[in-house]
Amino acid sequence: MRLSWNRYGKARIRLVKVRRSSEPHQLVDLTLDVQLEGAFEAVYVDGDNTSCLATDTMKNTVYGMARQHDITSTEAFAERLAAHFGASPGVTLVRISAVEHQWERLSPGGRPHPHAFVQPGGEQWTSVVTGDAAGIQVAAGLANLVMLKTTDSGFEGFPRDRFTTLRETTDRILATSVTASWRYRQGMRRFEARGQIRQALVDTFAEHDSRSVQHTLYAMANAALDACPDITDITMTLPNRHHLLVDLEPFGLDNPNEVFVATDQPYGVIEATVRRAGN
Amino acid sequence: MRLSWNRYGKARIRLVKVRRSSEPHQLVDLTLDVQLEGAFEAVYVDGDNTSCLATDTMKNTVYGMARQHDITSTEAFAERLAAHFGASPGVTLVRISAVEHQWERLSPGGRPHPHAFVQPGGEQWTSVVTGDAAGIQVAAGLANLVMLKTTDSGFEGFPRDRFTTLRETTDRILATSVTASWRYRQGMRRFEARGQIRQALVDTFAEHDSRSVQHTLYAMANAALDACPDITDITMTLPNRHHLLVDLEPFGLDNPNEVFVATDQPYGVIEATVRRAGN
Amino acid sequence: MRLSWNRYGKARIRLVKVRRSSEPHQLVDLTLDVQLEGAFEAVYVDGDNTSCLATDTMKNTVYGMARQHDITSTEAFAERLAAHFGASPGVTLVRISAVEHQWERLSPGGRPHPHAFVQPGGEQWTSVVTGDAAGIQVAAGLANLVMLKTTDSGFEGFPRDRFTTLRETTDRILATSVTASWRYRQGMRRFEARGQIRQALVDTFAEHDSRSVQHTLYAMANAALDACPDITDITMTLPNRHHLLVDLEPFGLDNPNEVFVATDQPYGVIEATVRRAGN
Amino acid sequence: MRLSWNRYGKARIRLVKVRRSSEPHQLVDLTLDVQLEGAFEAVYVDGDNTSCLATDTMKNTVYGMARQHDITSTEAFAERLAAHFGASPGVTLVRISAVEHQWERLSPGGRPHPHAFVQPGGEQWTSVVTGDAAGIQVAAGLANLVMLKTTDSGFEGFPRDRFTTLRETTDRILATSVTASWRYRQGMRRFEARGQIRQALVDTFAEHDSRSVQHTLYAMANAALDACPDITDITMTLPNRHHLLVDLEPFGLDNPNEVFVATDQPYGVIEATVRRAGN
Repeated sequence: MRLSWNRYGKARIRLVKVRRSSEPHQLVDLTLDVQLEGAFEAVYVDGDNTSCLATDTMKNTVYGMARQHDITSTEAFAERLAAHFGASPGVTLVRISAVEHQWERLSPGGRPHPHAFVQPGGEQWTSVVTGDAAGIQVAAGLANLVMLKTTDSGFEGFPRDRFTTLRETTDRILATSVTASWRYRQGMRRFEARGQIRQALVDTFAEHDSRSVQHTLYAMANAALDACPDITDITMTLPNRHHLLVDLEPFGLDNPNEVFVATDQPYGVIEATVRRAGN
Repeated sequence: MRLSWNRYGKARIRLVKVRRSSEPHQLVDLTLDVQLEGAFEAVYVDGDNTSCLATDTMKNTVYGMARQHDITSTEAFAERLAAHFGASPGVTLVRISAVEHQWERLSPGGRPHPHAFVQPGGEQWTSVVTGDAAGIQVAAGLANLVMLKTTDSGFEGFPRDRFTTLRETTDRILATSVTASWRYRQGMRRFEARGQIRQALVDTFAEHDSRSVQHTLYAMANAALDACPDITDITMTLPNRHHLLVDLEPFGLDNPNEVFVATDQPYGVIEATVRRAGN
Repeated sequence: MRLSWNRYGKARIRLVKVRRSSEPHQLVDLTLDVQLEGAFEAVYVDGDNTSCLATDTMKNTVYGMARQHDITSTEAFAERLAAHFGASPGVTLVRISAVEHQWERLSPGGRPHPHAFVQPGGEQWTSVVTGDAAGIQVAAGLANLVMLKTTDSGFEGFPRDRFTTLRETTDRILATSVTASWRYRQGMRRFEARGQIRQALVDTFAEHDSRSVQHTLYAMANAALDACPDITDITMTLPNRHHLLVDLEPFGLDNPNEVFVATDQPYGVIEATVRRAGN
Repeated sequence: MRLSWNRYGKARIRLVKVRRSSEPHQLVDLTLDVQLEGAFEAVYVDGDNTSCLATDTMKNTVYGMARQHDITSTEAFAERLAAHFGASPGVTLVRISAVEHQWERLSPGGRPHPHAFVQPGGEQWTSVVTGDAAGIQVAAGLANLVMLKTTDSGFEGFPRDRFTTLRETTDRILATSVTASWRYRQGMRRFEARGQIRQALVDTFAEHDSRSVQHTLYAMANAALDACPDITDITMTLPNRHHLLVDLEPFGLDNPNEVFVATDQPYGVIEATVRRAGN
């Protein structure tokens, strides 16, 4: 038997980099794969790891190099990574694959916002019509409205117990995928009102000085009720898509709120219904 | 034991309606769920289906009513469906849920196109950088570019054998999710060229008079190579996301290329590489 | 520019074949891809479809050949398909990929059942514990319990209206993915009872002579309540995973309940709660 | 406007606990959601977090309590969590949802293995038949064979550079989802050989003393080639599904290789082809 081909690496390294040094903030959101081929027979056959760069090190390298270098284009950053890993002993081929997740700057009131973004990715309008003996009830809403702001979000003053390790912060990334559903008063026919309601939700997310996801949810819900007198209540679900600051200190680097790992799970979920008084 | 609650219905009814009577074409793309609650004990306990409207009939009803009525808003169409099903014997509650998939009209050359659309849903830029003894090679591309045209697409003149039932057509919906990857000549640094390449792909999809997916793929690939002299070849994958005309004849209705079911599987897949002569 | 490589075909052809001629029934469940490479320049460059075997024909061929031949192994069936498509004009390479979905025969009471199967695919135990002023309430359940029976299931006597096209049947495939959740009386600690409850659900699915999904759901729920006196009620959701008989008549072939297409959407959904009297 | 309902919590907390104190090892694999309802108006309306237990603390609590208590049943563990969170100020309702991922003990040679497990979750047989001028080539394989061993796996002696933080370990969890594909020599018809090949892969995973994923991959591939003389080569892909030891020290608890978080991404990927000499 002989090893006739081999490749190994790290897949799905999630990197979010914010350039905060200037206004407006710039946002880069990548998923990267690093793959190496080379003369690694001893690793496979003998269990000798002398030449086996850990895939954990590959991940760390991506974060470290993201701190050290501007990412002017994904291609140029990938070239840098390819050159770095290509210099490792035994490596004959490096392959860096990257997927760029697109974010568009929000423009509340028509002016480009310095630090709030939307990700065009499958947003949908939803509606639920229920009919029973009491008549017909129309609810409408939206799903998968993905937004992120790079500042104006903090989380402080929460209780601490034996299991609390989270640090207080006055400045973090806030990212969420909004699901909202509002009910129209009976007989309402101006279903195009949903456009204004969406606008109120988006603008408030961008402009709000957030002390928690709950705090922002409530502000958004209020803005929606203000924007359309024909809705009686609104229910919102805001997952907290955590972006964790990467600890670069072990590599001798600082990280002034610039390099983050976007995580999928676990995630916070905040849900609430806000109702117009009298309904 | 007693049945203390029950609900049944049809989930994920896929409806695409094109209003072709006027230019420009209008497009509605919905996924609908129909759910009924009611006095259905006999169905559960005795296996007596006298009052059990088949979920297949629910699906047919959605398509038939989509032909009979304009869909000015999803909410109004859902109200119509709720009223219809609410009149069935035994039903005490109807629930119609709808998700609207968003399509934006394409605008090649800045002018709104009469029948070509893009679905903003997770499009991504991709890149693959490979480094080996021969140097560094950069490929770039895009994925999940979802487009649809409601006309200017046919499929005729294909061979017929014992297993061929597909009818020839001069007018069908063409829908696809483009994946493309192109390679830059060595040393190329103008990675922002991807914007022009994407534009060439999109404009050609909109403007091409398509005789097959293959025919359109080739035209798109040519346009990309024309748009950027620095790419040596382009590889494209175009799934054929079939939109099947619904047969409404059993309901006494015609269907002049208006009501379609969007299907997920099976699907056609067309792939090819087009290379600049001399490379 | 020149076409330097091309491939096309049909992806995700879903084929379920039942061998019913003998007891016990045999079940084959495949997802197939057909891919062809060849001299198809004229299709791409000129829009000339003379040599372009329709991917719809590929799909039909898979179903027709599934009727004509025993599927003793997936590999042998794929070889047959490869030989068939390899004889098409212009084809230089055929590639048939197949995924076999595994089904295990159910064995209620320890005896292998002649026509009821389970698909080991991600079944999970679930639980929900709720605590409030009234105390702690424990619900347990299961999800993704995928079962199929090839006979002993019919659907007749349902109402017919303008939109009804479904034929009455005394013999169809019944397939579902069971989600169930039951509540324990307060203070119950024998949580290992879930094993008996699951067994009651599975055995009843296998043995029940089904007149509808509702009818089977109710029988299963009753059996669960019988199996464990400590549960007060059970809520079940049974999607109807439709297996449609393929119409082979256009190919001059009959189809005696043997060749089916498994569909993903739309699907029926049947939900109910059955409660022990007095609770 | 008033807040008429609210709920928040942490979703998808992944917990894997190994009981290693006795042979054989026991394995519990859960995904948990914690949800609280209560008098949290000040959090929403005023941005006052005094009563807002951080969802990060919820996650930590799950891991800490998993160390402190035996998990004899998921229900009993969820009850403990419900009681704990129910005592937080302001909370009126706690809801703990859990999904149990099932693992079965492997039995190489018919004897239950003390620390190797398989997860029945969608394993599939695959095959690819290719036909061209050179004849017909049959490859077969399997996908989604998910296995885990709680010991007999280490990773030491790998190179360290500026970006290396991974600790050397002689004892870790090794978990993977095997994809394998082997090619049969031409003319081979005994396709049922796949059963023996799978057995060789599974038994070797269980019995191998692993110094790296590469090391185990090579041993498995060799065993497959030994088990069936009719295969010429085998290509395997082994993702490294990292199980990270949770740092419980901040809570004043040790963690003797018992409480892990199962992570989805990033993950290592190890791929190789092993070929029979002379082929």
